[in-house]
Amino acid sequence: MKKMTFVIGLLCLGMTLSAQPGIISTRPANNQDGKILTMEETILSRELSPANLSARWADSDEILMHKDGKWQYWNIATGEYSDYKAVPAKKLHAISKNQSLYLIDKEGNEKVIAKSTCSNITYGDIVSRNEFGISGGIFWSPDSTKVAFYRKDETKVTSFPLLDITTRTGSLKEIKYPMAGMDSENVQLGIYDIATGETVYAKADDFGYDTYLTNITWSPDAKKLYIIVLDRSQKHLKLNEYCPETGNCLNTILTEDNDKYVEPVDPLYFIKGFNNIFLYRTANIDGYRNLYLCDNSGNIRRLTAVDADVQYVANDGKYIYYTSAEVSPVENHLFRIEIKNLKKGVVKASFGKPQRLTFEEGWHDVQLSPDCKHFIDSYSSLSVPRVINLCKTDGKKVSNLLTAEDPTLDYAYTEISLGTIKSADGQYDNYYRLIKPKDFDPSKKYPVIVYVYGGPHSQMVQNTYLGLLRRWEMYMAQRGYLVYVQDNRGTENRGLAFEQAIHGQCGQAEMADQIEGVKMLMDLPYVDKDRIGVHGWSYGGFMTISLITNYPEIFKVAVAGGPVIDWKWYEVMYGERYMDNPATNPEGYAKTSLINKAKDLKGKLLICQGAIDPVVVWEHSLSFIRECIKNNVQVDYFPYPCAEHNVMGKDRVHLHDKISMYFEDYL
Amino acid sequence: MKKMTFVIGLLCLGMTLSAQPGIISTRPANNQDGKILTMEETILSRELSPANLSARWADSDEILMHKDGKWQYWNIATGEYSDYKAVPAKKLHAISKNQSLYLIDKEGNEKVIAKSTCSNITYGDIVSRNEFGISGGIFWSPDSTKVAFYRKDETKVTSFPLLDITTRTGSLKEIKYPMAGMDSENVQLGIYDIATGETVYAKADDFGYDTYLTNITWSPDAKKLYIIVLDRSQKHLKLNEYCPETGNCLNTILTEDNDKYVEPVDPLYFIKGFNNIFLYRTANIDGYRNLYLCDNSGNIRRLTAVDADVQYVANDGKYIYYTSAEVSPVENHLFRIEIKNLKKGVVKASFGKPQRLTFEEGWHDVQLSPDCKHFIDSYSSLSVPRVINLCKTDGKKVSNLLTAEDPTLDYAYTEISLGTIKSADGQYDNYYRLIKPKDFDPSKKYPVIVYVYGGPHSQMVQNTYLGLLRRWEMYMAQRGYLVYVQDNRGTENRGLAFEQAIHGQCGQAEMADQIEGVKMLMDLPYVDKDRIGVHGWSYGGFMTISLITNYPEIFKVAVAGGPVIDWKWYEVMYGERYMDNPATNPEGYAKTSLINKAKDLKGKLLICQGAIDPVVVWEHSLSFIRECIKNNVQVDYFPYPCAEHNVMGKDRVHLHDKISMYFEDYL
Repeated sequence: MKKMTFVIGLLCLGMTLSAQPGIISTRPANNQDGKILTMEETILSRELSPANLSARWADSDEILMHKDGKWQYWNIATGEYSDYKAVPAKKLHAISKNQSLYLIDKEGNEKVIAKSTCSNITYGDIVSRNEFGISGGIFWSPDSTKVAFYRKDETKVTSFPLLDITTRTGSLKEIKYPMAGMDSENVQLGIYDIATGETVYAKADDFGYDTYLTNITWSPDAKKLYIIVLDRSQKHLKLNEYCPETGNCLNTILTEDNDKYVEPVDPLYFIKGFNNIFLYRTANIDGYRNLYLCDNSGNIRRLTAVDADVQYVANDGKYIYYTSAEVSPVENHLFRIEIKNLKKGVVKASFGKPQRLTFEEGWHDVQLSPDCKHFIDSYSSLSVPRVINLCKTDGKKVSNLLTAEDPTLDYAYTEISLGTIKSADGQYDNYYRLIKPKDFDPSKKYPVIVYVYGGPHSQMVQNTYLGLLRRWEMYMAQRGYLVYVQDNRGTENRGLAFEQAIHGQCGQAEMADQIEGVKMLMDLPYVDKDRIGVHGWSYGGFMTISLITNYPEIFKVAVAGGPVIDWKWYEVMYGERYMDNPATNPEGYAKTSLINKAKDLKGKLLICQGAIDPVVVWEHSLSFIRECIKNNVQVDYFPYPCAEHNVMGKDRVHLHDKISMYFEDYL
Repeated sequence: MKKMTFVIGLLCLGMTLSAQPGIISTRPANNQDGKILTMEETILSRELSPANLSARWADSDEILMHKDGKWQYWNIATGEYSDYKAVPAKKLHAISKNQSLYLIDKEGNEKVIAKSTCSNITYGDIVSRNEFGISGGIFWSPDSTKVAFYRKDETKVTSFPLLDITTRTGSLKEIKYPMAGMDSENVQLGIYDIATGETVYAKADDFGYDTYLTNITWSPDAKKLYIIVLDRSQKHLKLNEYCPETGNCLNTILTEDNDKYVEPVDPLYFIKGFNNIFLYRTANIDGYRNLYLCDNSGNIRRLTAVDADVQYVANDGKYIYYTSAEVSPVENHLFRIEIKNLKKGVVKASFGKPQRLTFEEGWHDVQLSPDCKHFIDSYSSLSVPRVINLCKTDGKKVSNLLTAEDPTLDYAYTEISLGTIKSADGQYDNYYRLIKPKDFDPSKKYPVIVYVYGGPHSQMVQNTYLGLLRRWEMYMAQRGYLVYVQDNRGTENRGLAFEQAIHGQCGQAEMADQIEGVKMLMDLPYVDKDRIGVHGWSYGGFMTISLITNYPEIFKVAVAGGPVIDWKWYEVMYGERYMDNPATNPEGYAKTSLINKAKDLKGKLLICQGAIDPVVVWEHSLSFIRECIKNNVQVDYFPYPCAEHNVMGKDRVHLHDKISMYFEDYL
């Protein structure tokens, strides 16, 4: 075992971003007297969506397309269409139901392979509340001889009661909800052998009862199983190799440590043709999420050497394809790097120069064909609604599948622009989007609504069609508001130091950055600085209440949805990563708790909440208003009785009407 | 057994009320520039309370007085004061705790006499959710040799979950809540014999599993026990006599039947010196709650022969003392009737003429001395803040204990008046109270707030100090609002036909009557008929939403608190009395359900709710807003997270601020 330890501390790495000075683009100023969005259109209608086409690879010659309401295969060589045919069922598949794990054959016969005997134990389902890149609980070996699966034991996790009002007498739905600092889940990984019917468990409790088991990966030959094991504090991880027959740990390939957190979200990406060489992605070595070429002996070499976050896409054994933020954090482009002499091993292999494969300004979503000879390039930018091309990986465009028209041409014009503003610490350019009111007149004064999210793993501003605008922003702009959206420190795609700037004090750096943007707005001649509102949901709800209570002199009206109020009520996995444990970071929890800020609320605040929210439980917002009541501070509230964390469907029309009317009434 | 059956149908008895034409009284128009009430004063302060004295009989010679913060005895013969001394503890007392029944002696030694072995069974506590006059679950025999107690079995009753947010992780409090039409409690009456340590149960399941056992009364010699047993439909009752040694039923003394409901709320009032002669109160014989002289053989004679409701007060074996609404429904006066020759039995006894003992206009609260020679007469009226006199029952005043000054003299003047308005069916005069705005100018137009309760067993308008005004009404009047409060059919003190007019269709007759009042207001020159609001809590919350959804053209703004939304979610005992069973009265339930009315909401409606309300459970209001959301109807909401049915203490200041601001913002 080769041990490698990388610690990135509080050091802020000065980034050289391709910062965009001021406004970078706008749509053409067309139809001033055009249509006005209805609330239904902002939520329910798809007619403002520019791309009436979806396409994905069926195999290296055929693309499965959904066009004009119909699925068809399109042969990229012949250009011919053929009818969609259902993919034949696999011989065996595995499902998790009623907390147990079943094998089901083609005829539908079920066989239980891990039976839950207790309501606290679940087999084959997701664990760790979808954190660490976890999106499923069943992992077939590539040769289909074994099934690995999660076992989750929630015996020690406290329950939180939710009220279901849809039953005759009202009834209780209890969910298991591990809160920061409290007892958590126990996770194990079982490996079931189809031939023998036996299950072994990976010996993976390296960090005790609440070790996280993440990013389960089989080697291509199915002879090894890899698990990234992580301790409860999320400051230490090991990449371990296991024997699927015995569950024994064969090797710890590498370790990572960080005094804030490590956050493994990627499986191992094996190089085609190798069972022991793979790509590993981490931000913890060079400060950006880059790709590293590794082998199972622990040899490791940096492949993508850029001060920008990259995403693995595919490889054909010769080229590694990835997208990267290196052109601009608000753009996404495809690159490839050739690897030579890999048969001589990781250390002796040589790497070619990175080769850029997409060139048009904007955000490119790419899909490589299985043989990596072609890719579907779907992109948009502030001035390009949507283009979908079929391209060769040698750089040539084969054909254009879609060039969408701007579907907002008939609607009353509202100018949208992107720009940058310095972060509060002066180290970064933060990107913003601004939409101006219909019939904008720079000699008038307009109210502003800041829409905020601001939490980790988010990016609200990209150089895409309408700049990731939410239709509600256009709705409000058409009714006379400036709407401003800005990313801040802590968000995605900007490297580790930018992301970790919030550690231990969620909301503080984020607020400081948002306030920079708001001050810039307040200096604009056409901004009515006495009429500034703020709105956000979830982390953005937390930000919204943080902003109106910390800056009562700036914000007149706020609408917060599903807000975190105190991180001690949020979940273990996400919460402790960013806030540590309440026992080890009491100052951070106290400083960021909005319970302590309720008394400082001066403006009008409406809180909305899904009443059966299992993500940000009702405890948060009810506790905040309880504190307001204690301090005789007025606050408004609206629960959506049958909504979970996000208010969806028709309820969402009602919600956005409510939000809009609140700003109309009070801003 | 002598069986007597009285059925009062839909017949409306034409009442000859001493109706008050128009305004009957006002306070003197004093201090126009006086103090303005703060919200805290409306809720927390006692300084607007007129009587800084409370007095109750210690024995026939002494009154225990609380005056100037001190308890003292006052000898009515000598006029001397003596210090308060604690009453010596009883030899034995019984308490219900942890659902079991205990005897506790003077030394504090406990002995369990009925032990609950299951969370669904409770001994010695109230049953039937406090309906039918039930206020306790332990009934000592007069000779202290036996303890009768309730046993309540809630096994079949569904639970309703309440969320307690005051615990670290949020926790569940489940309450048993029997909903209309669903399985209910089983109630039994145990009789424990101190000497033998044995318990027998009264054989009282006359109407099966959910027979109600009400108004438990021991005979003075402790040899008999009386129970009024009532069927689930509440249309049939029996007054039964039991043997406390065996639990056997000895006799059914009388029965009552009514095709709407019978509602026994009084125990038997035994005549001093007799173990078998008592007063029985019912409205079911003559249409008003009158007193009847009965014996345990079933002989019965009407004692109080007035078309008005009376209340039993006391008797000394010779005189029966009672209060009555016969002078006016908004006044309460003491009367007595002499009974002669009672030793010859109920049939042969002769009754004197009723003799009125209180004469000053207003509402008299009276306390008779144990020997019935004196009474404390505490009264007020619209023009008398509070007078407390000591009087002789022969009619002479002995001394004045208190003549309170009007504590509102320093406050800005707002005129308060009482009056009457015809009920919608033209049969009755309904009483109202109106407070006019500060600096009232009849040439101006003022907005109106209708404050409404309207439910059974309520009387919101009486000829008392400020006319039962809630201080919040004065608060709003000082801020420019007319506030109107009116009793309607269904309320108390007006006889059975008036009360039962609402049966099976709660809210319908009440609304019709309230609308008569509102129409009268709309015809007043100083009323701005485009600015009419309504506010009420509980039954009044139900009325409020009923009014704004049934009369959207009249009401612009409404605030409803803890509202019943559909009677199917309300409790069995109260709900089925007024609405029958959902299975037998589906039309009535459908017609009165506000779920069906949500789509008709046009004005602004704020609903407030105690989030742990065990009386009108959260199901009601959450279901209503769910229906509003479904219909994309805007509605506002505010929960009080730690409040039960009524929002009390400091929370109430916050609540009343919220209510007031809602009217200020939108009316």
